[in-house]
Amino acid sequence: MEDRFGRVRRGLAENIRRLCTEAGLSQEALARTAGADRTYISQIERGIGNPSLRILCRLCDTLDIEVSDLLIT
Amino acid sequence: MEDRFGRVRRGLAENIRRLCTEAGLSQEALARTAGADRTYISQIERGIGNPSLRILCRLCDTLDIEVSDLLIT
Repeated sequence: MEDRFGRVRRGLAENIRRLCTEAGLSQEALARTAGADRTYISQIERGIGNPSLRILCRLCDTLDIEVSDLLIT
Repeated sequence: MEDRFGRVRRGLAENIRRLCTEAGLSQEALARTAGADRTYISQIERGIGNPSLRILCRLCDTLDIEVSDLLIT
């Protein structure tokens, strides 16, 4: 059975991809604007990363969304 | 001005303290159940930590709350 961490990071990945598409933002642009490494962002977008709260907040600044909403599954 | 990271982790700290009080759970018990170091939990509860998504999910398992709700400010 998928645990909470698996479910949450899969939802996070889906939310980020959807928001990026809506904003016309590439993975590279998201990484650059959030001041993060592209490989790190790529892992999050594939649902395999373990992002810190700080980087989640930076992504939210770029995507203009609350962290609580970014993590809704 | 307080940035998003500052606001979010302050809210997280308040939410965890409130939920622990409601559940009659000590900081030590929370750390033990979540399989985390007590110092690490203490930092989160003081709003100065930078928790990973994995540890936030473990805290949610213990506190029986969704991550998105734990991070509402």
